[in-house]
Amino acid sequence: MIEIIQRGGVTSPKGFVAGGTFAGLKTREEGTLDLGILLSESPASVAAVFTTNRVESPSVTLSRRRAAGGSARGVVANSGCANCCVGGYGLKDAEEMASLAAAQAGCDGDDLLVCSTGMIGVELPMALIRQNIGNVALSPDGGAEFARAIMTTDTRPKEVAVSFDAGGRKVTIGGAAKGVGMIHPNMATMLCFVTTDASVDAGLLRSALREAVDASFNMIDVDGDQSTNDTVLLLSNGAGGGPAIEAGSGAWGAFQEALTYVCTDLAKQLVRDGEGSQRLIEVTVDGAASLEDARAAARSVASSLLVKAMAHGRDPNWGRIMMALGKSGAALEENRIDIFINDIHIVHEGAAIPFLKDAVISAMSVPDVKFRVSLNLGAGSATGWGCDLTEEYVTFNSAYST
Amino acid sequence: MIEIIQRGGVTSPKGFVAGGTFAGLKTREEGTLDLGILLSESPASVAAVFTTNRVESPSVTLSRRRAAGGSARGVVANSGCANCCVGGYGLKDAEEMASLAAAQAGCDGDDLLVCSTGMIGVELPMALIRQNIGNVALSPDGGAEFARAIMTTDTRPKEVAVSFDAGGRKVTIGGAAKGVGMIHPNMATMLCFVTTDASVDAGLLRSALREAVDASFNMIDVDGDQSTNDTVLLLSNGAGGGPAIEAGSGAWGAFQEALTYVCTDLAKQLVRDGEGSQRLIEVTVDGAASLEDARAAARSVASSLLVKAMAHGRDPNWGRIMMALGKSGAALEENRIDIFINDIHIVHEGAAIPFLKDAVISAMSVPDVKFRVSLNLGAGSATGWGCDLTEEYVTFNSAYST
Repeated sequence: MIEIIQRGGVTSPKGFVAGGTFAGLKTREEGTLDLGILLSESPASVAAVFTTNRVESPSVTLSRRRAAGGSARGVVANSGCANCCVGGYGLKDAEEMASLAAAQAGCDGDDLLVCSTGMIGVELPMALIRQNIGNVALSPDGGAEFARAIMTTDTRPKEVAVSFDAGGRKVTIGGAAKGVGMIHPNMATMLCFVTTDASVDAGLLRSALREAVDASFNMIDVDGDQSTNDTVLLLSNGAGGGPAIEAGSGAWGAFQEALTYVCTDLAKQLVRDGEGSQRLIEVTVDGAASLEDARAAARSVASSLLVKAMAHGRDPNWGRIMMALGKSGAALEENRIDIFINDIHIVHEGAAIPFLKDAVISAMSVPDVKFRVSLNLGAGSATGWGCDLTEEYVTFNSAYST
Repeated sequence: MIEIIQRGGVTSPKGFVAGGTFAGLKTREEGTLDLGILLSESPASVAAVFTTNRVESPSVTLSRRRAAGGSARGVVANSGCANCCVGGYGLKDAEEMASLAAAQAGCDGDDLLVCSTGMIGVELPMALIRQNIGNVALSPDGGAEFARAIMTTDTRPKEVAVSFDAGGRKVTIGGAAKGVGMIHPNMATMLCFVTTDASVDAGLLRSALREAVDASFNMIDVDGDQSTNDTVLLLSNGAGGGPAIEAGSGAWGAFQEALTYVCTDLAKQLVRDGEGSQRLIEVTVDGAASLEDARAAARSVASSLLVKAMAHGRDPNWGRIMMALGKSGAALEENRIDIFINDIHIVHEGAAIPFLKDAVISAMSVPDVKFRVSLNLGAGSATGWGCDLTEEYVTFNSAYST
């Protein structure tokens, strides 16, 4: 039983504090937060998933190294600058940013991870970071401030927290995220921070995070591009009390379910806020030969430009869905495929069912367009999410830096 | 020495005739050609490359089977209907279309391949094809008519022909193509027909076509989507006289060079006519560890939505090029990468060279935007092409069928 915490975020779990400040990295307007710290009051297990782009920010390189140890106290994050493609200074700057934040937070510099998001190719303005990091006030109510400090062109912060019963004890998981795939031009984009007061060993934490990310952040697509800075961090500090959660226990199942819920909720918040986006596209594929096939097929449909454009125009052009399924690599037999658009059955056994076009257009005139595909081959099932492609996306992205 | 033939096309090589007619498949406006036949006057070797989409048109299925035999007389092609996702009728209709065309052309039905392009999910209007195919007049001047008959939303026909010396004998290669990747909404899109009066054995012809296609049609991208009907056909009838071209001979080298030229020229014509496209993007990657890496990197940059949008807005946002290189899978070392935009050196050893932004914007204000990337790792080199992403693309594709 997952219970959603109203206005919850990364400081909803016990033993976490956070805060953010204006440092002038993103804009000259005071009040715009762009530097934040998230801290566990006690040592925490850490698991992380990073970008697979071969061009990566030194902030990622440093965090990857530190997360490998399995233990951390928290993270310092900035928006406005990706600290990427800056030559040898990047790693030095990331290390100094961690040390400055550690002095402010009262922990060891090596215990903090570093995340940066924003323009690629410009150096971190360290003078501004040195000057302003002392203004970050860490508090148990600071989650919302932290969520705002990591925003770039996001129009709103993305937060969620849930509590659930883990073996007779109430446990909380909270999260904050920013960015929307790589929709943001030269933003190096997706960051997500998840905290929990459950006690989970680092190895288990990694496996839980991998499973949750595969079903959530790896199933969204905005524009097919992949950032140099993408990071998902999960910190578990055990402040909720009780014994560590053991693999295979009932508490473990509940933990995995709640973690996947939190990641999926944040992933959908990202897609909904996609640049220029007007509709969420949800693609469910069932009857696939395997889970991998179902995921590949759902992702292929959700990331097809032609499907995105069709969702934008409320155009029930189902041939595009067939095309995207066919190129996905998933096993399929054309004459077994069924397709539904917002519950209207429009393709049966690979061929069109006559439908009232106006009725389907009406059914598509809602904020969430749902495509369901039955491959009718096996038991594999998966859901993926995308956003529609709009003229505003092109306008925004064609003149970002000029 | 390749010599370009003015207004040349598929009937420029000796021994080929072609023609097209209005059949009412694409529009009700008479004069709009939508059904064409291309024929070699004598049996020809045939090589073909087809879509790898698992959802394929029965026209592709039939042509794939017939091309496997290595010999054919020609092809019948229609626009307006892809003959795809139509259940069991598709194959029967394709076979009948070939028989009807063969009766008109005076050859055996089994000797013709079939290509269809247009809407997915609707059946071929066979009554119209039966009624009108008798109006196709085959002539040595019919190449231009054939090129128009295969157009869907193309704004202009795409043709080219060249002649060259092959071992002391003048040989000609001609081609016609339509479609622009999968930019055209539910069009099932790219078709290309190449003819030559050189005499080349079917096995060699296949290897030459594969090499030419890998360097041309496989290096263009409009929107990442892949059609259910893509086909490239090459017919060699030996009508130019002389002995068959042998592998490894000087004539063979000249043939491969000319064939690659023809395919590349047509591929670029497709991209230039991309829906809403205003600029051609040419991406050259050199210094890659291998040819495969160079191709993967060039294709990744040319197909990145963010790079396309940046070319549209003339925005020298080079971080996006780094991002696209990093996600391509090609081996790279960030601090060795150099980037040039229209010959202006803007990134050296992975970091920005200060440049006058207005100067680069001016340099990008031309129909062809050229990105050159030096990975400085090895000798692999390749060029890929894309078109820019414009608001018009989205508008057109969001309301195509409604």
